[in-house]
Amino acid sequence: MFVLFTDFGVHGPYVGQMKAVLHVGAPGVPVVDLLHDAPVYAPRPAAYLLAAYAPEFPAGSVFVTVVDPGVGSARRAVVLEADGRTYVGPDNGLLAIVARRAETARAWAITWRPDRLSDSFHGRDLFAPVAAMRARGAPVPGDAIDPASLARTDWPDDLAEIIYADPYGNAISGLRADRIGRDAVLTIGGHAIRFARTFSEAAPGAAFWHANSNGLVEVAVNQGHAARQLGLEPGTGFQIG
Amino acid sequence: MFVLFTDFGVHGPYVGQMKAVLHVGAPGVPVVDLLHDAPVYAPRPAAYLLAAYAPEFPAGSVFVTVVDPGVGSARRAVVLEADGRTYVGPDNGLLAIVARRAETARAWAITWRPDRLSDSFHGRDLFAPVAAMRARGAPVPGDAIDPASLARTDWPDDLAEIIYADPYGNAISGLRADRIGRDAVLTIGGHAIRFARTFSEAAPGAAFWHANSNGLVEVAVNQGHAARQLGLEPGTGFQIG
Amino acid sequence: MFVLFTDFGVHGPYVGQMKAVLHVGAPGVPVVDLLHDAPVYAPRPAAYLLAAYAPEFPAGSVFVTVVDPGVGSARRAVVLEADGRTYVGPDNGLLAIVARRAETARAWAITWRPDRLSDSFHGRDLFAPVAAMRARGAPVPGDAIDPASLARTDWPDDLAEIIYADPYGNAISGLRADRIGRDAVLTIGGHAIRFARTFSEAAPGAAFWHANSNGLVEVAVNQGHAARQLGLEPGTGFQIG
Repeated sequence: MFVLFTDFGVHGPYVGQMKAVLHVGAPGVPVVDLLHDAPVYAPRPAAYLLAAYAPEFPAGSVFVTVVDPGVGSARRAVVLEADGRTYVGPDNGLLAIVARRAETARAWAITWRPDRLSDSFHGRDLFAPVAAMRARGAPVPGDAIDPASLARTDWPDDLAEIIYADPYGNAISGLRADRIGRDAVLTIGGHAIRFARTFSEAAPGAAFWHANSNGLVEVAVNQGHAARQLGLEPGTGFQIG
Repeated sequence: MFVLFTDFGVHGPYVGQMKAVLHVGAPGVPVVDLLHDAPVYAPRPAAYLLAAYAPEFPAGSVFVTVVDPGVGSARRAVVLEADGRTYVGPDNGLLAIVARRAETARAWAITWRPDRLSDSFHGRDLFAPVAAMRARGAPVPGDAIDPASLARTDWPDDLAEIIYADPYGNAISGLRADRIGRDAVLTIGGHAIRFARTFSEAAPGAAFWHANSNGLVEVAVNQGHAARQLGLEPGTGFQIG
Repeated sequence: MFVLFTDFGVHGPYVGQMKAVLHVGAPGVPVVDLLHDAPVYAPRPAAYLLAAYAPEFPAGSVFVTVVDPGVGSARRAVVLEADGRTYVGPDNGLLAIVARRAETARAWAITWRPDRLSDSFHGRDLFAPVAAMRARGAPVPGDAIDPASLARTDWPDDLAEIIYADPYGNAISGLRADRIGRDAVLTIGGHAIRFARTFSEAAPGAAFWHANSNGLVEVAVNQGHAARQLGLEPGTGFQIG
């Protein structure tokens, strides 16, 4: 299946144009929208989100990943094959964390170019056609590169920072929950946040952190909206004590 | 086909993860998003919405219904088979109105459990796999229960209350239009609202009620936004005179 | 493939009900959401958007186009066949620009009526069933009409006006970029806006216009939100000097 991960937003005409390319290029392959509201123009939080969600998708999945503030500039376009899944996108850090956590990885800089390459929509003109080639088993013209050479080797393995607020107001961080003990206290926005296993273990209105369904540390409020109540947004950092 | 009805929101990574499970578990079955912005954590209005929309879908449809504030608590997970359609979800009232209006119904408490069951995402880990089993004709381990024993037998047959404001601002109620006469006057938020058959029968800017395309009483304003103009939101009750 | 173009919004239960009709009527045909947040009740800007996006879709595509403030009134329902693509929708100008720019076009007024035709949801009850007939090759009962007789022959070939603000805040106009020179200066909201080829050619925070990936003149701000910063919204006109 194709898995779409972008900052295109849930509105607008961009996702649909990209899907048309995928359907034409690889008929019959289902297309799943994973996330279209990744923080806009911000590959760093997106990289940690993508790495957390990727294991939910079966081997053979082809991800089209587009958070691409440098579209139209000289940044490389790459294919990453990691643990049986394929990722097509810009080399700006977006794939850094997936690559780093992979047990097996290979990568290519894409040299193929379409007849028409717009300056602002490589998702449609470059990444989607390449993803379709991969999905139908066609070779993708490219130069093999070392996956360890993908951009942003300077980013940490985990990010003690809010990277996404979900529709319920739960504030998701880039820190894997199994990296810290359940007695850890998070200090965030002046609040001391303790662990609870489930929402119902916390008092109504009380904030807590838990291991979310993708294994990330998440700050939540039972029957409340953590992001709004605690003033959390992508980029808010925290300490672990 | 699978039909998704949730309060997950149109943003966020939850719908996509659930769809991946459906595609893997029942390849080739189309997946239709019916509603993802059901009032959050509110099974009551959602139950009347679901019952109004369900008849639009063909026999054999498998609904995955998730408005589940009690996820991770002891509430039952159930399968309801009603008038040829299947519903998989929490037993918290969400399926109460569908069950009550059905001519033929059977139900099971799901005893199957996945290898991994997160505390907060039964949509992905429990309901979607069970829906996929049903769609491909596999048996679902469960205990037969009386459909009349599903939660919230105390809720009324119709709900004289706004349950959803649509993107145009039309305020949809939980009251079936064929339960009242066309000379009925609704008193809502201090306004007396009379019937009109169509938008164009009302003066521009005038509020009216009509039988919407799903048979529910709906308050609308010709060329306007009823919810905003009249201050209507889910939970706003009304009298019928 | 089916291509959906509506003002239904990304929330709400309307798109899903329409898709169920398409899946039942033409099983196996993929359905792509192109745009669901066309300016509400405004066929004029939508007509120029649709004409810009249509060429991205392959021959054989069947568009279901619904921006239909006159639903339930006497406006015609039509099928337009233009350059190998089919469009089904209301005859209120929405298809005017596609028809006018087509090299080959044929049109029909739809005389087929479903058993149930709601007053407010012809997308589900009339346009989707007709689109499904077309997609499976069934004849659609209708009267041939001259494509040049479709509504709104009075609208201009290009529209020097903002017609859509995308999720990044880029303000898309109804003017094709190849109609003006790259030395053209747009005067819009008191600002003089000059051309840049790409975002990175403009200084951070600076406004510019460019030819977007669909060939339309678009006003953008490098690393900014043009619509908000310049006060642009659908309907904002501009001069070209």
